[in-house]
Amino acid sequence: MARVVVDVMLKPEILDPQGQAVQRALPRLGFEGISDVRQGKRFELEVDGPVDDAALARIQEMAETFLANTVIEDFVVKVEEEK
Amino acid sequence: MARVVVDVMLKPEILDPQGQAVQRALPRLGFEGISDVRQGKRFELEVDGPVDDAALARIQEMAETFLANTVIEDFVVKVEEEK
Repeated sequence: MARVVVDVMLKPEILDPQGQAVQRALPRLGFEGISDVRQGKRFELEVDGPVDDAALARIQEMAETFLANTVIEDFVVKVEEEK
Repeated sequence: MARVVVDVMLKPEILDPQGQAVQRALPRLGFEGISDVRQGKRFELEVDGPVDDAALARIQEMAETFLANTVIEDFVVKVEEEK
């Protein structure tokens, strides 16, 4: 068993109203010095069996077709821990 | 300028219907071998100035009071890159 993380973020050129809302709220709440906030999604996948190149290729394909909308989003696949 | 990432995930004991929906859809879409999926949020903060202990303590407090609902969510603060 291993955990693989897929981080999905809006592409830099795509407007992120959620992140902007957070960023604008921060000074009001007393937190200064944050110039930008982007909000995205994090998927933690528990993978049966070893995370070899074939498994990673499959997860990459899954992220591309299903977890991220690659027209507006970028994603990163990371192996977090082997158990 | 540095990027600090705050990952917010539901606590393990809290039901995650979004993650479950993803997990159940995967076999139908031809992806086998994923035993669990949890979905959470990822915030990327662009911090003005150096990310020293004081800045990190402030971001920790911000995450605790504002980005995460600590009744049902855990969060992790990570410094990603110094620019």
